[in-house]
Formats: sequence, structure tokens, C-alpha cells
Amino acid sequence: MTRFAFTVEFDGRPFMGWQRQAHGPSVQQTIEDAIFAVTGERAVIHAAGRTDAGVHGLAMRAHGDIDKTIAPFRLMGAINARMRPAPVSILACEPVDDDWHARFSCIGRSYIYRIANRRAPLTFERGLTWRVIQPLDVPAMQDAAQLLVGQHDFTTFRSAHCQAQSPVKSLDRLDVIRDGDRIAIHAAARSFLHHQVRSMVGCLAMVGMGRWRADDLRAALEAKDRAALGLNAPPDGLYFVQAAYPDAPFR
Amino acid sequence: MTRFAFTVEFDGRPFMGWQRQAHGPSVQQTIEDAIFAVTGERAVIHAAGRTDAGVHGLAMRAHGDIDKTIAPFRLMGAINARMRPAPVSILACEPVDDDWHARFSCIGRSYIYRIANRRAPLTFERGLTWRVIQPLDVPAMQDAAQLLVGQHDFTTFRSAHCQAQSPVKSLDRLDVIRDGDRIAIHAAARSFLHHQVRSMVGCLAMVGMGRWRADDLRAALEAKDRAALGLNAPPDGLYFVQAAYPDAPFR
Repeated sequence: MTRFAFTVEFDGRPFMGWQRQAHGPSVQQTIEDAIFAVTGERAVIHAAGRTDAGVHGLAMRAHGDIDKTIAPFRLMGAINARMRPAPVSILACEPVDDDWHARFSCIGRSYIYRIANRRAPLTFERGLTWRVIQPLDVPAMQDAAQLLVGQHDFTTFRSAHCQAQSPVKSLDRLDVIRDGDRIAIHAAARSFLHHQVRSMVGCLAMVGMGRWRADDLRAALEAKDRAALGLNAPPDGLYFVQAAYPDAPFR
Repeated sequence: MTRFAFTVEFDGRPFMGWQRQAHGPSVQQTIEDAIFAVTGERAVIHAAGRTDAGVHGLAMRAHGDIDKTIAPFRLMGAINARMRPAPVSILACEPVDDDWHARFSCIGRSYIYRIANRRAPLTFERGLTWRVIQPLDVPAMQDAAQLLVGQHDFTTFRSAHCQAQSPVKSLDRLDVIRDGDRIAIHAAARSFLHHQVRSMVGCLAMVGMGRWRADDLRAALEAKDRAALGLNAPPDGLYFVQAAYPDAPFR
């Protein structure tokens, strides 16, 4: 048996999310079915993060155990060939120690959330970016974002379906950067609650639109109440960027 | 009658190209049909460039004459609403002089050609980028590209269907820039021959793969013979970026 680590890019639009679901296609099932086609083995693939329906991955990390003796490069090519035409692609594949775990060994996760701040409907980026028509005040968003950085009880920013034991998380980075009519929100933490990034982005958008002041964001955080959430941003703009491990921190 | 200038973004994947065709959807028809739905008028839309099937537009310029009295902002919104779900979007709309012509007044056109230089299949960017598996030597491509800059007879780089009167064109810019595994080729000229950018990119890729030296590219240019072409790059990676006019040069 060899444990292989995979780096996975996927377009989340056609999927019910990362995790295998009875009622629709998932990224996990796409990879597992391809591995079965290649090896005849029903390997279970574990990921650093379980993304929701419509959320994308740039370099998700995952692992699976495979008995068949096969070179990593050949395995990667064979899985990619079998996944077509699903928009999932293995970017890298390497053998790792048997106790390396894509989820439990992970010490850092980063996301990017993309906004197109324009009136015109999207073309190329439909489902890949959140279009916000109202002009967003990015400096105000960036200032407000800093209220969320650090260790907090993020209950307000947590889905009712969240399975984390504690709502207390330590947010390492939340930066809002404008480039023309594009806004990118960069978030990094050891781990996130379910819907945390989308909920934070939604509330920052409220600030950017001028519907909330930074004080309103602070009050929402301190309320520790999901009902205090201003807005949950759609999955379209959310990308899992990368995962950090003790031997491989963020680049 | 008011002549309106439009700035148009479009995803070329579902279209037979810009120009109206009897046998399939076109960007031109999509816009003209939307204008008819809004105004009841059969306006003809003229563009700065007529892109091929599968070629994209970031800020194509176009114009059309409309009798109905309507504010530019309302016209833009109404056309965009009527074009859904086609991936075409009017980014800007303004009245112009009656003798302003998107094609004939245009004094400069720029394109970008996007390459993903990687083995892994594309996900988000399928149809939006040319994937080239062989590692490309970008400095060699950039050096060779400079052989094409300036005034030349570009017969080798011209489609058999090209309708231009002369194969002599003056290429102002051809730059090859790498960013990680992404390569962007920037081309600018007063005007281009049919297939010229794709043909130049294809030959630069031959150089990048090491299958051609710069001398081979020079020989191909000097042959003035379509049969001397090394490779015509696919439409996937080609984007019409912008058009320049006497009163509005490239930004």
C-alpha cells in the first residue's frame, strides 16, 4: 500500500460539493471513480477541506491509499484521463508517509473570494465570480475586515449545519484588494467553520455598500448569533487556494 | 437617429464567431436580436474586428444606429437583459458622431493569447486557454517574436480565407510573458490579417518547444507562403482586448 498525496484543481459549478453525496456528482466521487477505473481499487479520498456546492479549488490537497504499484506520474495521468470530461484535474501526485493525512495533518488553509464590482452581467466568469453591482468601498471593507482577524467566537459566521466542536477560530488573514473592477478577498486560518468565509465576505460586502458601518460588523461578531449575519455571499466566488502542512507551509 | 458605440465582452465558446452566420449563433446576431427586442429596430452592428469561432472578446468596440430615443445607460441595461443567457455583455455604451465607425475609424487593435504550459488538463479555463504540455522556452519565444515586429508581408501567417487587399501589415508589438505556468502573448497592430495572431502564436510555440529555431521562423516569414506555416494555434486562447481610435488611443 502506498499513500498518495494529490493536489487538485476543480471547477465547482457542476458539483454538489467536494464530499460524496447520494443525490448528485461530487469531486470526491469523480476522483474515486477514476482511481477505481485505473486500479480496480475502491480508495477513499480525504481532502484538506470539504467545499460546498459551487465552490472551486485551485490547489486542494487530498490523499488516498492505493495497493497497486504504480509510479506517481503515471497514476496522475491515468486518473486525469479517466476523469474527463469532469472539470477536475490532478496537478501533482506524490507518495507520502502512511500517517500523513490531508485533513488532520493540515495546519493552514487559505481561500480567495472573487468579486466583479460592475453592472454588466458576467460572461466568462459566470459561476466563477460574485457580481456586485453597487460600488464597493474597498478601504472601508479592508478596515472592517481587520476586526475579524484574530481569535474570536465566529458563531455569527457559522452555518447551522457546521459540525465543528467549537465556534472559536483564529483568523490569520483577511485582506480585501481591488484591481480595477475586480476585488479579491484573501482569507487564511488554521481551519474555518462551515460557511465562515462566505459569511465574512457577505458582511464585508454590506460594509462596502455602505449599508453597514464597521461598528455593525463588530456588533454582529459580538452577538454570537447566526441571526445577526448581514449576508451570506454566494458560492460562485469562493476558491480553496491551498493547504499548509508542517513540512510544507504556505508558499 | 443616434449612433451608439458599444464596448462588448463575450465568451466565444458557443459562437460561430463575431459575424452573423446562417448556420449558427454569432455575437453580432445576439446583440442585434436584443436590440430588436428592445427597440423594434433591425440595427446592424459593426465591430472593430471580426473574430473567429471560439475566439473571445474583452472589450470589443462596435456601433449601431438606433432611431428610438433612449438613454445610453438604459439601452445598455435593456440589451444586456435581453441577451441572457448568452455570454455576451455590453460593458459601456455612449452616443458618438454619425461618422464614427467601429471598424473604419479604428487605428489600433490589440489581442492577448493565453497559454497554460502544463500537463494537467484544464478545468475552469477549458476553451479559454491553450494548454501546451511541452515546456516552453519563453525567452526564446520572446526573441523570435521580435523578428515579426515591424512591417512585413505576412502571407505565411494569413488564412486562405483572408479578404484583406494586401498581406503587408505593420506589427507594433509581440511580447511573450510568463507568469508561473501561464504564458501571455500580447500583440498590437493597426490591423491584422485573418488568422495572423493564431498563426504567429503557433510558430512561436514551435520555437518554444525547441522544434524551430528563430532562423526557422525568419525563413517561414520570408517564404511568404502559407505552406511554410509551422502551426496555427487553436482559437481557445485568443482574446480581442481593445480597439484604439484617434480620440481614444490604447490606455
